[in-house]
Parts: sequence; structure tokens; C-alpha cells
Amino acid sequence: MEWKTKISNFTEEESTIRGFDHENLIGKISFSSMIYLLLKGRMPNENESKLLDAIFVSCIDHGIAPPSIISARSVASGGNSLNSSVAAGIMALGDYHGGAIEDAAKLFSSTLDVSNLVKKYLDKKIRLPGFGHKIYKESDPRTKKLFALAQELGLAGKYSEIAFQVENEIFKQKGKKFCLNVDGMIAALVLDLGFNYTTGKIFFIISRTPGICAHVHEEITEEKPFRRLKINQTKYIGN
Amino acid sequence: MEWKTKISNFTEEESTIRGFDHENLIGKISFSSMIYLLLKGRMPNENESKLLDAIFVSCIDHGIAPPSIISARSVASGGNSLNSSVAAGIMALGDYHGGAIEDAAKLFSSTLDVSNLVKKYLDKKIRLPGFGHKIYKESDPRTKKLFALAQELGLAGKYSEIAFQVENEIFKQKGKKFCLNVDGMIAALVLDLGFNYTTGKIFFIISRTPGICAHVHEEITEEKPFRRLKINQTKYIGN
Amino acid sequence: MEWKTKISNFTEEESTIRGFDHENLIGKISFSSMIYLLLKGRMPNENESKLLDAIFVSCIDHGIAPPSIISARSVASGGNSLNSSVAAGIMALGDYHGGAIEDAAKLFSSTLDVSNLVKKYLDKKIRLPGFGHKIYKESDPRTKKLFALAQELGLAGKYSEIAFQVENEIFKQKGKKFCLNVDGMIAALVLDLGFNYTTGKIFFIISRTPGICAHVHEEITEEKPFRRLKINQTKYIGN
Amino acid sequence: MEWKTKISNFTEEESTIRGFDHENLIGKISFSSMIYLLLKGRMPNENESKLLDAIFVSCIDHGIAPPSIISARSVASGGNSLNSSVAAGIMALGDYHGGAIEDAAKLFSSTLDVSNLVKKYLDKKIRLPGFGHKIYKESDPRTKKLFALAQELGLAGKYSEIAFQVENEIFKQKGKKFCLNVDGMIAALVLDLGFNYTTGKIFFIISRTPGICAHVHEEITEEKPFRRLKINQTKYIGN
Repeated sequence: MEWKTKISNFTEEESTIRGFDHENLIGKISFSSMIYLLLKGRMPNENESKLLDAIFVSCIDHGIAPPSIISARSVASGGNSLNSSVAAGIMALGDYHGGAIEDAAKLFSSTLDVSNLVKKYLDKKIRLPGFGHKIYKESDPRTKKLFALAQELGLAGKYSEIAFQVENEIFKQKGKKFCLNVDGMIAALVLDLGFNYTTGKIFFIISRTPGICAHVHEEITEEKPFRRLKINQTKYIGN
Repeated sequence: MEWKTKISNFTEEESTIRGFDHENLIGKISFSSMIYLLLKGRMPNENESKLLDAIFVSCIDHGIAPPSIISARSVASGGNSLNSSVAAGIMALGDYHGGAIEDAAKLFSSTLDVSNLVKKYLDKKIRLPGFGHKIYKESDPRTKKLFALAQELGLAGKYSEIAFQVENEIFKQKGKKFCLNVDGMIAALVLDLGFNYTTGKIFFIISRTPGICAHVHEEITEEKPFRRLKINQTKYIGN
Repeated sequence: MEWKTKISNFTEEESTIRGFDHENLIGKISFSSMIYLLLKGRMPNENESKLLDAIFVSCIDHGIAPPSIISARSVASGGNSLNSSVAAGIMALGDYHGGAIEDAAKLFSSTLDVSNLVKKYLDKKIRLPGFGHKIYKESDPRTKKLFALAQELGLAGKYSEIAFQVENEIFKQKGKKFCLNVDGMIAALVLDLGFNYTTGKIFFIISRTPGICAHVHEEITEEKPFRRLKINQTKYIGN
Repeated sequence: MEWKTKISNFTEEESTIRGFDHENLIGKISFSSMIYLLLKGRMPNENESKLLDAIFVSCIDHGIAPPSIISARSVASGGNSLNSSVAAGIMALGDYHGGAIEDAAKLFSSTLDVSNLVKKYLDKKIRLPGFGHKIYKESDPRTKKLFALAQELGLAGKYSEIAFQVENEIFKQKGKKFCLNVDGMIAALVLDLGFNYTTGKIFFIISRTPGICAHVHEEITEEKPFRRLKINQTKYIGN
């Protein structure tokens, strides 16, 4: 009995996911509700499902420039299958690429003393995960959208509060605004939805997979094979 | 101007996906609607979005046994990151694992003469992709669910018709039922939704990614590292 | 008894690879000899091992520009592990990236009538795998090196002969030289060494893995995280 | 000038690796010498090359049971390419799978006070990386082989000494033997060869890649597609 699971049971007699008959869910619930059930083990209510939809919409794509798209399209360009190329995109989603959600979620879920926490980071001159943005200084518009929705749905809870406390505390201690960015907001909302911080990266992966798929499909159907860096994009700097 | 895309445009001035302002979509549309827009380039209506939800729900997980879950959990078990382990699961989704959707979609989209097509396959003794099931002989209950929904939503079109014609023709020529299975039904519906057959595998990948994520998370949080085959599961058969 | 293998047997009582005690090989044979034994099931003689060394040296790296290095370094750049990044490089080694070795090996191993074969390709205006080079018109210097060595070692056999016959036949039929390139030469030599054409890609993968490792290590130790395309390297071309 | 490298320079005018003309190396040096040059930036002497050969031989394969082979063969079994399947094997080589080499190398390269170091680990009840073996209690025979060879070649240096000091110190403090295993020995020898500990995992990856290739090739050529766990190998343990 080596491979055990709590997630689902597919045998000749039964097809259940988290105790629900799988077939009966088809046509009854949305993809986001199904994802919630799968990850959390209970059916979400309508509001929880809506908030999840918003989270997934908010990270689905960020243009052609990020490392995940470069790696995915490069693998496709070498003459490889769509699924393998998509996998190469997901492989790029590491600590510096979507990692802030899980890092911020861990931070928020372990914090009792916000003031002290911020002090510790500022003293060490480490940036707090989920705060600050290259372009958005005052506030991240996606944060605003997500938070407004969460409030409207009655789902902005304790962790959202902590997140904004951290934002305020950074301003207080540093005298400069580092806004709660979309990663930090999602981190707080995922916790408020009842998920453990260890699932943080999962929400980014599920959300971004369709974006990577779209780019890989475009590469395969519209581009010539074997992309390589042009000579003026590379530099040999000696041994 | 080496890396060009029609999908999205994220610059300091603009954040658009398929021409729609990304921010404005957050909280407005479901994840499935967003995926439709991303892949197809236009906003779906409510019915199209619902059918897509049903398709994604229908393939989200199939238990711990398939090769994708073995590979994903094995990579996790070697002491690797969640995103890398999920990627290993997606890498397993090859020609024999979810591949029937794209193969069947290609078949349906290229067929004018169903009778002749079936004859060609039967003569060569090749199984038609999207037909037959180990357990379900008369009909696949997931097929029934999806087709009933598509009819109710007014979205069962030309390709669904072709799919059932093929099912009938196999019975006629072979004297034995090979039911339109869930892969074949999804293939037909994806075409009826206006997608090209080249996107067939994408629907399976997007749908199955949450399932793989759930299994990897379970492996990382609940299992001891370094799974290996037990001695009685392996056999050395000489050189 | 589900997982069976002819390759090796590692139990509490025994550690053998292709019937040879593994421990006893350490310090006795070269890496290339070991690879030959592992893949072919018999110990190579010294000449066979030397030719294999030359083949592995010839494909070990080709600079920073190819898609495999872009994908590997991009994955590293997202904040991922060395092994996962190296894997992303190997994932890029598809039909258009190292694929010519296997394609040419298949060609050479299935050919009896060289003249007719070349005619078939030229009629269809398909390039023959293993022939032609962007820079080297008359001859590929790596081909010369490998062939001279194979002759010196007494290992240039029937398939090398076929390879050069194809080169001559192309010139005869087309009136233009398409030299046997390094991929084509390796294909012929691998067959002359007694390997099946289905192993063609393996020689490229083994050879290029150290190169990918070196690039990934350089990326991790010397570069800042999160490479992304600059705005002037991308182009949004509308929906 | 975004992508810079010290490793190699391949342009129309030049093909050099670490300053050496690539062509001229073909047929002149062994694969292991080439790998040394590539990773270290200077040509090894004959003894260094021989020791590297022994290291690569010692990790090339460890049977069908480890997670890397399960993941690689599972991906192949889903109907995927050889290179993608091999990549899935390399993806499994994480912290618990070959990771001890790098961990031990880091340990040895940072240690001045062996006695204190061992005490620290024993106090925390953490196992020291590179020490202990399930089967080999007194000594690991591969360690003996590698160390004897290194001594014979005059390459057993300061780090090998430290490694055996740690072994002795564990025995002294714990009263029980935890032998320097093959991972720990390789770690010490790699440092004695002049490599940085950050390259530790690279030696394992290069060494194991041929083994993974052999297993994937066997899976593709000899097994039926779509491996899945049998019902009695899985267990559903509720929600």
C-alpha cells in the first residue's frame, strides 16, 4: 500500500474527488469551485468561488517578457511538444517568479507583532515579500480591485488586515510608501479563504498555466523553429 | 523585434490581454471566461463560459494511479520544488495521456465522409481516438453529462453531430459498440466552441494542472522523502 | 513484477551493470567506456572508447545562443534549482536541436539505394538530415576530424561509406555541395560503433549535458535573478 | 549585451571553449578531460582526468528503483520524447537524491574545527551529509576504491583528510561508526580537484544522465505505453 491519498478515489466502482461523486459535479459547479474543493476538501460557497475567480484572472498572463515565457517558447522552438514546453514555463516559476505569494503568505500567517516584524526586515535591509512595485508607488490597482471585491463579498478577514498593517508600518518606520502589491494581496486573501500558506505557489501556477499555454501555442503555430540569440545580444567576456 | 505576440501587451503604459484592459477584468469575469478570451481572442458569452467550466471540471483529476501523478510525486519525493514537480506531471501528458482529445479533434475537423473514415481505421485495425472505454461499454456517463449540457446551452453543433455519427458508424461496420468517450466528447465540444484542433491538448493541461498540484502538495506535506520501488516491484531480466 | 530491466541489478547482495560488478569498474575504465557498456551491453575495446570520447567532445557546447541554453538559464533566473534548470535545457533538445543525428542515423540504417533516396528527398525539396551547413560549404572541419580519427582507429565502416555516398549523390544530382556535417558524421559513426539508430539522440544529450550544467552554474553564481526581455526586444502585434 | 558568458565563444570567426579551439580538441582529449576544462577553465593533467573518470563511473546508475528512474520512465510511458523523459529524471535529482554530494562539499569546505562541527550536528541530532549507509556499516567499498585511486594518483588532499577526520570524530563522539559513504568521498575529491562546492550536484547530474538515458530508451523500446499503479499499490485514505 505504498501510494496513499486523501484527494480522490477512482476505481471500477467509484469515481470520487474529496468524497463527491465526480460525474455529478460536471455542469454543476465552476472550474474555480472545483479547484477549491480539490485543494481544500470542502465545497466553497458562491462568494468564495467568485473571489477565487478574481485571483486566477489577476495572474493569468503578464506578456511575453518574463523568464517563464522565454523558457517555454525556447523549448517549443527546439521542436518539442506543447505539454513539454508548457512544463518548461512552469519550471521557471521559482523563488523570484511568483514566489512572493507563498513568501508573503508565510509571513502573514506567522505574524503576531507587525511592528517588530517590519523592524526586523528593515534592520536587515531585506525587502518584505508582497510589498513594493517598480511602477506603482502609492498603490497597486490590482490590489485595490481584489480588496474591494473581497470586502464586497464579506471575505476580507484577519490576514488582509495584517497585510495592510504591514504596509502602514513600513511607511511609519521607513517614511516611504511600499504598497501592498498584487502578490501580497493574493497571499492575504488565500489565507482569508482558509488555505495554508504552503499552497501559495499553487494559486500562481494554476492561474499562469493558461497564459503559458497560449504563448506556447502561438510559438508552435506562428514562429519558425530554432530561436537563437543574435550575435549582438550575447557577449563573450573571456575565461 | 524578435519576440512578437498577439496575446497581450504589458508595458509601463498599458496592461492588455487580447485588447482588453487586464485590471478591469479582475472581479468581472470567471476564470473560464478569462481562459476563453486568452486562447480565442474574444470574450465568450455566458453559455460558452459554462460549457468550458464543465469541460475543465471533467478532467481535473483521475486518482493517484496515472503516469503523470507518479512522475510528479516522484520528483517531489527526490526533494524538489512544488513547481518543478508539477512540471514533471505535465511532462507526462503525452500522446497516450490526454492525447486522444487532440487526435479526435483533428479527426473530426478533417472529416467529410464519416463512413469512409471509419472504414479506413477498421481496415487498418487502428482504434479511433475518442472512442471506446475499458469500463463503459454502452456509454460514458461523462459524455452524457457534457452533451446534455451542451444541448441545453445551445452549443452542441456540427462537430458533436460528427462525433456521434462516427460512434454509430463504428457500430454499423463492426457490429459492436465503441462509445464516444469523454475525450472524444470534449474534442467535439472544443471544436463546436470555435477552437482549432491544435489547441486540443491545452484543455486537458489546464484542467489537469490543479489535480497535479493537489497531489504534489500532498506528497510534500504528508510523505517521507525518497520513494523507491520495493524489491518485489522490480525484476532484473538479464542482459 | 511490474518494473523490469536488463540494464542493471542493485540489491543488497549484488551491484551489477550489464552483468559487470559495478564497484570493480571504478578506477578501471573511462567514463566513455562505461557509457558504451551501459548502452550497448558489452565492454568496448580501447579504440571504440576513444571514438566515443571524440564524439562526446564534439557536441559538448555551442555557446550561449541556442534555445537549450536560453531555456536553462531562464529557469535558473526565475529562482530554481540547478538540476531543474539543467532539465529545462535538455527539454529544449527536440527535433530541431540535435535531432538531425537520430534522423540521419535512421536514414543511413534504412538505405540500400542511395541514388534513389537522394532523388526522393530532392524531388520533395526536403533537406536531408545531416547534410549542409550555414557556414561550412565545402566541408565541415569537425566531420574531417571525426572521420580521420575513425579511419585511424579502424572504425570507419559501412555507414560512414553510405554517408559520404549520400554527400556525393547530392552533389551529382543537385550540382551543388551540401557537405556531410558533424551531425551526419556522428550518426554514421554511432551506427558503425554498433548502436541502433534509436539511440541517436542519447549521444547528443549525454554530450551536451555538461555544457548546459556549465551555463546554468554561471547563471546562478554570476547573474542577477529574473531575466526578462527588454521592451525593444518584444513586439505586440495586435489581436 | 544582455547574455554574457565566460564559457565559450561560437561565432562565424571563432569556436572556442575556455579559450581552446574546439575543433582541435576533438580526438585529442577524453570526455572527462573536456568536462574538466569546461567546468574549471583549465586543462586537467592525466591524473586529474583519470580521477574524474572514476567519479563519473561510480554514480552512473543505481538500478530501476530510485525516484529519478520512476519519473523518467513514467514520462516516457505517457507517450513523450526521449529528451523530455530524460529531463524528468534529472528533475528528480533534488535535495534527497544526489544532494548529499553538494551538502558534504559545502560542509568540508567551510570547516576548520572538525570536533566542534560534529558536536553541533550530533547535538541537533541531524545526520551529517556524506556519512552512514543502510547496508555498509564499517566502510563503503566505493569510497575505498575512489580513495585508493586518488592516493595512487597523488590527488588525495586536504579535503579527503577532513572527510576522514569527520568520520573518526563521529565514531569518537557517538561510539558508533558512520562510514564516509560514496557521496561524501566524491564531495571531498571534487574539492581536492579544485572545484567549488557549488558545482557538487553537477558531477552527479553528468554521471547519472547516461543511466537515465539507458532506462528511458529501454522503456520506449520494450514496454507498453501508459504505466499506471495497480489497484493494490494504491490506497484511498479518506478526505
